[in-house]
Amino acid sequence: MEAKTSNASLTVLTDLVLPGDTNYLDNLFGGELLARMDRACSIAARRHSSRIVVTASVNHVAFNKSVPVGSVVTIEAKVSRAFKSSMEVYVDVWIEDRQSGKRTKVNEGIYTFVAVDETGKPVQIPRLTPETDLEKKRFDGALRRKQLSLVLAGKLSANDATELKALFS
Amino acid sequence: MEAKTSNASLTVLTDLVLPGDTNYLDNLFGGELLARMDRACSIAARRHSSRIVVTASVNHVAFNKSVPVGSVVTIEAKVSRAFKSSMEVYVDVWIEDRQSGKRTKVNEGIYTFVAVDETGKPVQIPRLTPETDLEKKRFDGALRRKQLSLVLAGKLSANDATELKALFS
Amino acid sequence: MEAKTSNASLTVLTDLVLPGDTNYLDNLFGGELLARMDRACSIAARRHSSRIVVTASVNHVAFNKSVPVGSVVTIEAKVSRAFKSSMEVYVDVWIEDRQSGKRTKVNEGIYTFVAVDETGKPVQIPRLTPETDLEKKRFDGALRRKQLSLVLAGKLSANDATELKALFS
Amino acid sequence: MEAKTSNASLTVLTDLVLPGDTNYLDNLFGGELLARMDRACSIAARRHSSRIVVTASVNHVAFNKSVPVGSVVTIEAKVSRAFKSSMEVYVDVWIEDRQSGKRTKVNEGIYTFVAVDETGKPVQIPRLTPETDLEKKRFDGALRRKQLSLVLAGKLSANDATELKALFS
Amino acid sequence: MEAKTSNASLTVLTDLVLPGDTNYLDNLFGGELLARMDRACSIAARRHSSRIVVTASVNHVAFNKSVPVGSVVTIEAKVSRAFKSSMEVYVDVWIEDRQSGKRTKVNEGIYTFVAVDETGKPVQIPRLTPETDLEKKRFDGALRRKQLSLVLAGKLSANDATELKALFS
Amino acid sequence: MEAKTSNASLTVLTDLVLPGDTNYLDNLFGGELLARMDRACSIAARRHSSRIVVTASVNHVAFNKSVPVGSVVTIEAKVSRAFKSSMEVYVDVWIEDRQSGKRTKVNEGIYTFVAVDETGKPVQIPRLTPETDLEKKRFDGALRRKQLSLVLAGKLSANDATELKALFS
Repeated sequence: MEAKTSNASLTVLTDLVLPGDTNYLDNLFGGELLARMDRACSIAARRHSSRIVVTASVNHVAFNKSVPVGSVVTIEAKVSRAFKSSMEVYVDVWIEDRQSGKRTKVNEGIYTFVAVDETGKPVQIPRLTPETDLEKKRFDGALRRKQLSLVLAGKLSANDATELKALFS
Repeated sequence: MEAKTSNASLTVLTDLVLPGDTNYLDNLFGGELLARMDRACSIAARRHSSRIVVTASVNHVAFNKSVPVGSVVTIEAKVSRAFKSSMEVYVDVWIEDRQSGKRTKVNEGIYTFVAVDETGKPVQIPRLTPETDLEKKRFDGALRRKQLSLVLAGKLSANDATELKALFS
Repeated sequence: MEAKTSNASLTVLTDLVLPGDTNYLDNLFGGELLARMDRACSIAARRHSSRIVVTASVNHVAFNKSVPVGSVVTIEAKVSRAFKSSMEVYVDVWIEDRQSGKRTKVNEGIYTFVAVDETGKPVQIPRLTPETDLEKKRFDGALRRKQLSLVLAGKLSANDATELKALFS
Repeated sequence: MEAKTSNASLTVLTDLVLPGDTNYLDNLFGGELLARMDRACSIAARRHSSRIVVTASVNHVAFNKSVPVGSVVTIEAKVSRAFKSSMEVYVDVWIEDRQSGKRTKVNEGIYTFVAVDETGKPVQIPRLTPETDLEKKRFDGALRRKQLSLVLAGKLSANDATELKALFS
Repeated sequence: MEAKTSNASLTVLTDLVLPGDTNYLDNLFGGELLARMDRACSIAARRHSSRIVVTASVNHVAFNKSVPVGSVVTIEAKVSRAFKSSMEVYVDVWIEDRQSGKRTKVNEGIYTFVAVDETGKPVQIPRLTPETDLEKKRFDGALRRKQLSLVLAGKLSANDATELKALFS
Repeated sequence: MEAKTSNASLTVLTDLVLPGDTNYLDNLFGGELLARMDRACSIAARRHSSRIVVTASVNHVAFNKSVPVGSVVTIEAKVSRAFKSSMEVYVDVWIEDRQSGKRTKVNEGIYTFVAVDETGKPVQIPRLTPETDLEKKRFDGALRRKQLSLVLAGKLSANDATELKALFS
């Protein structure tokens, strides 16, 4: 199975924030944004693996700025690292100023998906080769985050989480 | 006001077809697709004009292939020609095969938007410079389609629709 | 197969504009209106053909007036002409003043549907007999619009589009 | 204030049952039907009173037959009786057979609305004159149902509910 | 089949009122509330019967107070009485003040559900034993309401509606 | 400001999985579940703080089991620890067997909310006192998770993350 680039899975979901998508402060409702990010990430994971994919976990989503009604929201998702059958997907969320066109990052998230066959059994997926500096940084961080998940879930002892341990020594 | 390229307004809306988006034949419901296309086109028009835009008309949408539930649908909209305050936006719709990644065009549409100020009054917008062959072909066709609209609406006599008349002589 | 009147397919969809249906200017969102029109038209086509129908194209929709939140919107769709297995459906959209009850037309559209059997194969449908002056005018125009679609799609030479050609000579 | 006929408030809402409207038995979900009926009834009440109206109560809705996905559902609402500022609205729900066009009644409901001014204060509304036999029967029953509501709410003693009492003597 | 308590079927649905759930007065739309109540009641009925349940009727829903956008709405449904295969479900709706936490009742409703097997045939269900004073009062009222339904539907003569008749003598 | 218990913020959102909420495998769509969890957690945070709250981050959500269409899903959210103006909210998701009533945990998540005043400025909130063993365990873990967030965001050096460091020494 040939390795693929991170960019090969790039998925762009540009859409409006309509009043039916808002919370009562007239900003995009957090839950609606999480749902859009999940859809974009699942498409990126599907593009990398050429397989059916299911959400395994949301590892982190930071809400930095609120997104007012009427905004154009661009969600960009890319697989950041592929493991045996699971993938970490990194997603960035932007809004743009109507007059200047300038983009501002409002949100960033990390999701994990698993590729499965028609019976739901995990299957092997292609490796991922990062290209840009940002892709390499996220690729490296992915292993630490995976170890962290395993430690927090009690499936890996802190001592064996070598990548993570290095961070705190 | 400087002219802009067609590509500067490119808007990509990639999303899934979930069961809640289907008709009773388990295909993407036509009305839901029209709504997604309208949202993508309005963003393209907004990006070209840097203004508030309102839908003036749907000029043509052809449904060539049905889109089954579970598909990844990619909508790509670009302004094809700018008039005084109105813009024609061309939109192409694709699905992709999960295993081969091969894209198939399922749908194509033409919408018209008008740029307005905060009081709803039409405002002047930048001209558009087409670059690729396809963009040039669509740019040329846009004038014929505009004349056709005016003739059908009784706002232009068939004799004055010079571009259109040439087609039938 | 007996011919049917246009009125036999009349479909009325009266509904409110709630905040979840609006764009960020507090008017009915264009995409939502297109979806409602598509549903009303498909019911009209089904009533004429007594068959499963699928949207073939949206030929034209003009947005003349914006529809504010809280409006009562009445959509009236009728088959305007039946061809071999396809039908043109004409749809008018009205709002009404709450105090006077006076109706104002805000929108008008033309859709084409194809009647199919359970396997998706086009099937023959009854002819349509227009009755009122407006029905007759739309019936006559339907042939010109069909030729225009074929010419624009490159499936009919402009020279053979006799009805259309007459318009420009 | 001139009396109005029941028919003057007739509101027709014809729409499809799409998969997103169903329960897990592939029938129209009860809650979605209640919502559509509420919208149709509120438009009928608005048409009779020419006023803003708010739902006061749902008096009775009987679900006689389930409505399968893909059905065409027609909701017909009419004011059945007007009191000082409240109105009883009667609503009938039909599905139709695609091949024969035959209509079957699946559901029937009774709602009460109150007409209010901009400050939310109840206002006087026109009286209603029933015309057909069915309208007259529903007009007569409306008073009994109103008394019943008041008795059940403890706002009227059973002894003073003359219309209702007659039923049980 | 052992009797169950009313409390064993208690179902709590706490949720926000977002702008997409409102009418044009910025209050929770009546139809949306009816749908949420129906979902909560059907879960209570399912919990009592351990069976598939279908909505038979909405017997009464009173809208006492409007529910503004941004509210936290708590819906509490409990089976109030079980008959042979049908159940009456009582549902109370509350909002709460953000600062004081004080709850206010805004709405109350009564629904009837029938328990069915996989083929849709009604099946026998456990009896219900009320415990609190309120549960006992609602349990007693349920029989009167059932007789009333039958009388209004013409399936029981007023003379045989002994519970109801007692109310008016 | 008096401390509050974790249980004082308990928020229960019980609801059905209808076909419009599913992915194309007929299971509850991950994005829809994330949105429901976000709504339940925000109500819990609001109940603890008596303030307007905004989602700051999703710290972790694990999807352990898929949730089939027709399920009854119960979401239970409680504030697990309060910091100066931010709160960690823990949410557990259960489905229940219709026949046995037995509950199975399918999902668990951790969200962070910030309490703000009307101008959006963070405000001080009451402390939280955990009571049960599980509440105490989650209370203790919250500090480690907060440090981890700060380290990953580059706002705290790994050396100063004392709670976290202890885990790896």
